[in-house]
Amino acid sequence: MCETCGCSNHHEHHEHDNSRTIAVEQDILQRNNLLAERNRGYFESKNIFCLNLMSSPGSGKTTLLEATIRQLKDKRKIYVIEGDQQTANDSERIAALDIPVFQINTGDGCHLEASAVHHAVLHLNPSERSLLFIENVGNLICPAMFDLGEALKVVVISPTEGEDKPLKYPHIFHEANVCVINKTDLTPYLNVSIQQLHENCLKVNPQLRLFEVSALQAATLDEWCNWLMTFQPNQA
Amino acid sequence: MCETCGCSNHHEHHEHDNSRTIAVEQDILQRNNLLAERNRGYFESKNIFCLNLMSSPGSGKTTLLEATIRQLKDKRKIYVIEGDQQTANDSERIAALDIPVFQINTGDGCHLEASAVHHAVLHLNPSERSLLFIENVGNLICPAMFDLGEALKVVVISPTEGEDKPLKYPHIFHEANVCVINKTDLTPYLNVSIQQLHENCLKVNPQLRLFEVSALQAATLDEWCNWLMTFQPNQA
Repeated sequence: MCETCGCSNHHEHHEHDNSRTIAVEQDILQRNNLLAERNRGYFESKNIFCLNLMSSPGSGKTTLLEATIRQLKDKRKIYVIEGDQQTANDSERIAALDIPVFQINTGDGCHLEASAVHHAVLHLNPSERSLLFIENVGNLICPAMFDLGEALKVVVISPTEGEDKPLKYPHIFHEANVCVINKTDLTPYLNVSIQQLHENCLKVNPQLRLFEVSALQAATLDEWCNWLMTFQPNQA
Repeated sequence: MCETCGCSNHHEHHEHDNSRTIAVEQDILQRNNLLAERNRGYFESKNIFCLNLMSSPGSGKTTLLEATIRQLKDKRKIYVIEGDQQTANDSERIAALDIPVFQINTGDGCHLEASAVHHAVLHLNPSERSLLFIENVGNLICPAMFDLGEALKVVVISPTEGEDKPLKYPHIFHEANVCVINKTDLTPYLNVSIQQLHENCLKVNPQLRLFEVSALQAATLDEWCNWLMTFQPNQA
C-alpha cells in the first residue's frame, strides 16, 4: 500500500486524466471516426482491399511490403500509403518497384489519422479491385486508437523485440485482426521462443490470424500472400 | 503538386491541427514541465543522478539495465522506475537483482509523465548520491515530448531496427543527450551498418554521446558503466 496516496503499488497511472483533456480526445477520435467511415465507403465503392500495417519501428514492415509486392504485383494492382515522422525513404523503396505510393510525413505526429489517409487516397486514386497497404508510423501504441477506414488491421512483430511484447503492449494486439511475426530467420541467434511469442499473441487476442515469415526468404511468404489473394471484392 | 489541395507531395500532415487541441496540448506540457522541475529539484537536493531511458519496444532497455546494475550495484546505490502499458514483467526482473523498483503501468498511455515519476520517487525514497534509472514506455516518439526532471535523456537503439531510424524518427534523437546502440552481437546476422547507424545519429544530433554495447556481453559495457560513474554529485 502506498503511504503517499493510499494506492496499491502496481496501479495504473492514466495519463491525461482531467475531464477537459478527455473531452478533446473524444472530439479528435470522433472526428477521426467520421473520416474513417468516409474512407471505408470509398474503398467499398471501388472494391478495394485496404490493410493498415502497424508495428514498432524496425520490425520490417517496409521489407515485408517489398517482398509481398514482388509476389503479388502481377496478380493484382497494388497501392501503398507510407507514414513516417520524416524522410521519404520508405516511399522511395516502394516506388522503385513501380508501385504508386504516397508518403505522409507526420512531423511530431505519432500515428496516421483518417484525414491524411483520405488525402492520400484522393492523390493515388486507386483502381477497382486493388490492394491498398497503409504502412503506419512505427509505434506499437498510438496507431491502435485511430481507425483509418481499413478492412483489416495487421500488427507486425519481430522476435528481436522479445516474446513478451504482446503482453506489455496489449492494446494494438487486441485491436488487430492479423499478426505477422517477421524476421524468423533471426531466431537461431536470439534467446526468444517463437512459440511463446505466438502464444502470447493469442493470449491477448484469441481471434488473431497469425503468420510466421521472414521477409528476406520469399518461400516463407506464400501462406501470407495466398491469404491476401483470398480477398474477394464485392460482386457488382 | 497536389490536384486536390494544391499542396506539395511530401508535405507534412500535422495531426491535431485545430487551435483548441493545441491549447490543451500546451496545457498538458506546461503542467508536466512544472512537475518535472519539481522532480529536478528533488534530485538536486539529494544529489541523485537520474537518467531517462527511451526507445522502441524491444531494443533491450531492461536487459541493458540488468547488465549495468550487475556491474555497478556494489559501487553505488541504484533505483529503477519502470514504465509499461501493462504487466510488472520488467520490475520483477529488476527486483530479482535486489534493486528497489517501482512499476508504472500507463494503461492506454504511450509515455511517462512527470506526475507519475514524482509519485514513484516518493515511493522509492532514493538515498543521497544514488543512481536513478527511469525506463520509459517502449515508444520512439511520444516520450521525447515529456520532461521527467531527469539529468540526461538516453535513447537506446538496436541495429535490428535498421540504420535509418534516427532519420525517420529524429525528434527523440534530437532531444537525447546520450545514445546507446545495443545488441551489437547481432550485427553479423543483419544487413545493417553500425557505422552508418552511428553517423545517422550524429547527423540528427552532433552533440550525442554514443556508446556501442551488447547487453549480453559484459565486457562491452565498461565504457558505458565507467561513464555513468563519472557523475559527481554536487558537493555540499
